[in-house]
Amino acid sequence: MAGNDQLKTMADKLRIHSLRMTTAAGSGHPSTCLSAAEIMSVLFFAVLNEHDEFILSKGHAAPILWAAFAESGLIAAKELSTLRQVDSVLEGHPTSRMPLIKVASGSLGQGLNAGVGMALAKKLSGHPGRVFVLQGDGETAEGSVWEAADCAAGYTLDNLALIIDANRLGQSGPTRHGHDLAAYEKKFAAFGWETTIVDGHDIAELVEVLARAGSSGRPLAVIARTFKGKGVSSIEDKEGWHGKPLDEKELLAALDEIGPAEVALPSRYSPVRPSFHFHDYPVSEYSLGEMVSSRVAYGKALLHLGRHNDKVVAIDGDVKNSTMAEDFFKAFPERSFEAYIAEQNMAGMAMGFSAMGYVPYVATFAAFLTRAHDFLRMAQYSGSNIKFVGSHAGVSIGADGPSQMGLEDISMFLSMPEAVIFYPSDAVSTEKLLREMARHNGISYLRTTRDKTAVLYGNEEEFPAGGLKVLRRSAQDRALVVAAGITVHEALKAHALLESRGIAARVVDLYSLQPLPQAELQRHAGECGGNVLVVEDNYNGAIAARIAQVAGRVTSLSVREIPRSGTGAELLALMKIDSAAIVTAVEKLLPGRDRERS
Amino acid sequence: MAGNDQLKTMADKLRIHSLRMTTAAGSGHPSTCLSAAEIMSVLFFAVLNEHDEFILSKGHAAPILWAAFAESGLIAAKELSTLRQVDSVLEGHPTSRMPLIKVASGSLGQGLNAGVGMALAKKLSGHPGRVFVLQGDGETAEGSVWEAADCAAGYTLDNLALIIDANRLGQSGPTRHGHDLAAYEKKFAAFGWETTIVDGHDIAELVEVLARAGSSGRPLAVIARTFKGKGVSSIEDKEGWHGKPLDEKELLAALDEIGPAEVALPSRYSPVRPSFHFHDYPVSEYSLGEMVSSRVAYGKALLHLGRHNDKVVAIDGDVKNSTMAEDFFKAFPERSFEAYIAEQNMAGMAMGFSAMGYVPYVATFAAFLTRAHDFLRMAQYSGSNIKFVGSHAGVSIGADGPSQMGLEDISMFLSMPEAVIFYPSDAVSTEKLLREMARHNGISYLRTTRDKTAVLYGNEEEFPAGGLKVLRRSAQDRALVVAAGITVHEALKAHALLESRGIAARVVDLYSLQPLPQAELQRHAGECGGNVLVVEDNYNGAIAARIAQVAGRVTSLSVREIPRSGTGAELLALMKIDSAAIVTAVEKLLPGRDRERS
Repeated sequence: MAGNDQLKTMADKLRIHSLRMTTAAGSGHPSTCLSAAEIMSVLFFAVLNEHDEFILSKGHAAPILWAAFAESGLIAAKELSTLRQVDSVLEGHPTSRMPLIKVASGSLGQGLNAGVGMALAKKLSGHPGRVFVLQGDGETAEGSVWEAADCAAGYTLDNLALIIDANRLGQSGPTRHGHDLAAYEKKFAAFGWETTIVDGHDIAELVEVLARAGSSGRPLAVIARTFKGKGVSSIEDKEGWHGKPLDEKELLAALDEIGPAEVALPSRYSPVRPSFHFHDYPVSEYSLGEMVSSRVAYGKALLHLGRHNDKVVAIDGDVKNSTMAEDFFKAFPERSFEAYIAEQNMAGMAMGFSAMGYVPYVATFAAFLTRAHDFLRMAQYSGSNIKFVGSHAGVSIGADGPSQMGLEDISMFLSMPEAVIFYPSDAVSTEKLLREMARHNGISYLRTTRDKTAVLYGNEEEFPAGGLKVLRRSAQDRALVVAAGITVHEALKAHALLESRGIAARVVDLYSLQPLPQAELQRHAGECGGNVLVVEDNYNGAIAARIAQVAGRVTSLSVREIPRSGTGAELLALMKIDSAAIVTAVEKLLPGRDRERS
Repeated sequence: MAGNDQLKTMADKLRIHSLRMTTAAGSGHPSTCLSAAEIMSVLFFAVLNEHDEFILSKGHAAPILWAAFAESGLIAAKELSTLRQVDSVLEGHPTSRMPLIKVASGSLGQGLNAGVGMALAKKLSGHPGRVFVLQGDGETAEGSVWEAADCAAGYTLDNLALIIDANRLGQSGPTRHGHDLAAYEKKFAAFGWETTIVDGHDIAELVEVLARAGSSGRPLAVIARTFKGKGVSSIEDKEGWHGKPLDEKELLAALDEIGPAEVALPSRYSPVRPSFHFHDYPVSEYSLGEMVSSRVAYGKALLHLGRHNDKVVAIDGDVKNSTMAEDFFKAFPERSFEAYIAEQNMAGMAMGFSAMGYVPYVATFAAFLTRAHDFLRMAQYSGSNIKFVGSHAGVSIGADGPSQMGLEDISMFLSMPEAVIFYPSDAVSTEKLLREMARHNGISYLRTTRDKTAVLYGNEEEFPAGGLKVLRRSAQDRALVVAAGITVHEALKAHALLESRGIAARVVDLYSLQPLPQAELQRHAGECGGNVLVVEDNYNGAIAARIAQVAGRVTSLSVREIPRSGTGAELLALMKIDSAAIVTAVEKLLPGRDRERS
C-alpha cells in the first residue's frame, strides 16, 4: 500500500493537474479541487478497491476526478488537456458521456441520494463493496441530503460513507456553518449516522478514518476540515475564487509553490457500467368493457414483470396503496423500497439502483413527481434506466383539489429529449405499455388514472412506442378527435353523441406522447379535412401544442385555469374537457355544410 | 381565557364537525383531523391572537381547519356542509380560493418553509406576532423541512413555532420513526431549535407549551404524541383509515362515542390578506450596441425597483454573484436573504413573504429552479406574488455542461396557467420587463442570459406583456423568424446573411412568452406567406409548439438532444440554433422561387 508521503505527493500532483487543466480550459473550479486533493488521493490510491463505488457529488470539482482517473490509469493523461472542449468526454461537470461516470453531478446535493440507492443495491445483490460519496459543505444545505441521511440510517447502510469537504466557502460567500464542523456532525449524529471530524489535509488521519468505512455498523459521515484553494497561497481560503481559473502567470507561481510532485501509484478502483437485460413475460387478460383503473392494472402488470425480471425493484413515496405498487411490495418485499414522503430521495435512490444494473419503478402521485424535477434532469444526464409512474393524473381525481392533481407532469417529461412518455387509457394498454417501457433502456414515464375506466382493447392488441390507436373511424370523417388516457373515454361518448347528430368524427387514442406518431397524426388530420381537436386532462394544451407542430393549428381543449375540488365529472365539465365540450368544439370546428353526413 | 375543560370540549366539537363534513362529502381525511383536535382547539381558542399567523402544513386535515374557522366565527357554520363541493371555497386541501388562506397546502412539507418566510417578514416589518405551523409527522421526511429548519435557526426566528402532530401513521403504513418522538426531537435540536415533546391530546400540556412560542429565544419545535383517529375507537391508531370517511352508520356510532360537545369560545385569530402596491420608478439608460448581459441589467434594474418599492425583497441561492442579485444585496442588506443552496426553501420563503405583503424576487440558475417545481405549483395555488428569475439559461452558457444549463425552465413555467413569462434579449428590455413584472400581481418568470449581448433598443421603447418586437421587416418578407433572448442575436446575424443572398426575412423578438401575442404572431406569419421559423435555446421546441397552435405548422430549431461542454458559440452551432442554422432552415423553408427578392 502507498505510503503517506507518496499519497501527499499524489495530492499535490492532482492539484497540479487541476490547475493546469482549468487554466488551459479558461474556466472551471480549481479552488474547489484543491480543497479535496488529499481526500481524492487517499480515496483513489489507498481506500477504493475493485468492489467499491465512488460518486463525486460536488460535480464542479470534475477536474480533480479526471486527474484521479488519469493517475489511476483509467484514462490517458494526455486526455486531461481536453477538459471542457466540445469533443471531449471530460466535461465541466461529470456526465455519463464519460463512460466511467454512472451518476452525473453538478446539480448539488444529489450524490448522497444516488449513493443510498447504490448501497441498497449492493445489499440486495450481496455485493461486498462500499459506496463513497464526496460532497461539498455548501450542498449539505439541500434538503435532499437529509432525506438521504434519514433513509441511509433507516436501512442501516453500513456500506455507505460520506465525506464532506468542508472548505468553508460557497460560491458567493461563506457557508452558513463555515468551519463550525460540529454543526454538521451534530446533524448527522441526530440522523443516526456514525460521525467523525478530521483534518481533510492530513493524509494519516484520512487513511485511518476512511479505513473504517464498511465496518462502522452504520453509515459513516466524515466531516473534513479543508481550505478552498489549499496549497496555493494567492487563492487559499480567499473569497472571490469560486469557479475561476488562474491566469498563465498565476499558474506558474502556483506550480512553483507546489513543487514538482513526482509520483506514480496503483489504484484498484475500476467502475463498470452495468448491462441491460429484459426477459419477456405473459401479461394479465381483461374482458372488453370490464371496469378497471389503469393504476390497478399497473399494480398487476408490475407483478408480472417482476416475476420474470429479478432486477426490477419498486420504490414508492408512502402512497403505494394509491399507486398500487403495493401488489409488488407484498409479493417481493426484498425488492421493494419505501421512500416515505421524500420524492427527491426516491428519484435519487433510483439513479443509484440504475447505476448498479437494477431497473427501478418509481411511483407516486403525478403531481408529486414535480418535487423530483431536478433529479429527473440529472437522471437524464446519468444515462439512468428509470421508469417513473405518476398516478392520480389530471382534474378527473376531483374532490381532493388542485394540489393533488398531476397537471404539469406531461409538460415536465416532454421537456426531456430522451424520455419515453406513455399514457394508457385502459387496463390492456397499461399492461402492454408497461412491457414496452420495460423493454426500453432509458427514462420513461407512465401516467395512470385514479378512477375505473372501461377496457377498450382486446388482449391481443399491441401498443408499440410511437404509435396510436384509431378507435372510431369512417370514410365520412370530418373531424379528428385526439385524446389520451381519461379523455379517450370522453371522446368515445362524444363520438356517439356526434353520430346521433349526423357528424362523423374519428377518435384516436394517443397513448404514445413521446415519441409522437407524427406521420400517422398527419395522415389522419389530412383524412379528416384538417379539422383536429385535441383534448387532454393536463395544463395549457401541452399535447395539443406538440400536435400542432405536426398537423398544423388544432383546436385545444385542456385545463387552462386553476381547477378546484368537485366530483371528477364536474371537474371535467368545468374545465371543458368532457364529452359535452368535445361535441361543442367539434360542431364549432366544422363549417355548416360539413356537419351533414354525405 | 377558556378553561381546559372548555378547550377539551371544543376539541371534541371540532372532531364532530370533521367527521360529519367528510361523511357528507363522501371523501376526505377524518382520522388525520382527529389526531389534531386538541392542538387545533388550543391554538385557535387559547393561543393565536390577532397578530399571529397560522399555516396548516398537513393540508389533508383541511376539514378541521374549516371547522376551527367556523367555531372562531370567521365563516358561517352552515358552510361546513359544503366541503369539497364544486361551488364551495372549502376545498379538499386549503387553497387561496378560500379568502382566509394565504398559503395553500396539500403537497406536504412546504408549510414550514412558508412559515420561515412569514417569520422573517414579521422581523423585517417589526410586526409583533408569531407564526405557528402545524405539520404531520410523515411530512418531516421531506428535505424541504430540514432546509427550513436550518434557515429558521440561522436567522434565530424566535417568532416561529412548529407543532408536529406525530400520529405515527402515514398513508400506506407507519412512518419511519413511528412514536419514537425522541428521533424527531434530536434532529430539531441538532438543527438549533428549542424542542419539547408533549402529549398532543393533553390540553393543559399544550396550553403551557404553546404559550412559550415567541419567548424561547429560538424557533420552537413541539413534538406532539397523538393518535390518528383519536376519540373514535373503531379507527383510532388503526392502519387502513387514511383518507377514508366513515359511512353513515359508523358516523352515528362515532358521534355517540364522542358525546354532545356543546361549547362556544371566542377566538382572536383573524388572518388578513395583504394588499398590493407598485410605485413606478426611473430605469437605467443604455446605448445602442453597448454590450451588457441581461443578468447584469437585471441586477441594476432590481436596484432601481427596490429603491422605490420598500416591499421588494431579494432571495438568492448562493449564486448572487452570478444572477447579479448581489447589487441589491449590497444596497439593501436588510431586505436581502441568502437562502444558501436550498432552492425549495428559497421558493417556500418567498411564499411566506408574499403572504405578508412583500414582493420577493427569487433568483438562481434557471436550471436549479426545477428543484422548486412543486413549490411553484403550490405558490400558484396560494395566489402568491413572486417574481422568479433564472440566469444562465440555455446551451449558450457553454463550458459548464448540461447540468448547469436551464433548458426546461420555459416548459415548466408554460405549464402554469397564470404565470407571466418574459425573456429579454438585451439590457433595455430587461429593465422594462422587470418593471412590467413588478406591476403584475402574481407569479412571473424572467429568464436572463449569462453572456453579454448588444443593446438593441432605445431607452424609450416599452415592452408590454403579451407583445413582441419586429426587429427587421420589409414588404418583401417571405419568412418569419421568431426568436427570444439569446437567439434574437443569432436571428439578426442570420438576417444579414440572408439579405446578402437576396432573401428577405422578418425577425421578431418574442419577449413575452406568456401571455403570447397570438394575433400579432398570426398576422406576421400571414404576411410572410406562412413560412415560420422558431428558434429557441430551450429543450424540445416548447415555444415553437405554442406558436404552431397559433400560426399553424412551424419549423422549429431548438435543443433536441442532450448538450455538452464547449464554448457558447460551439454549442449554439452544435444544437443547430445559431445564425448558420437559421440561414439553412430559412432557405429550406422557402420554395425556390420565393428565395428571390421580387
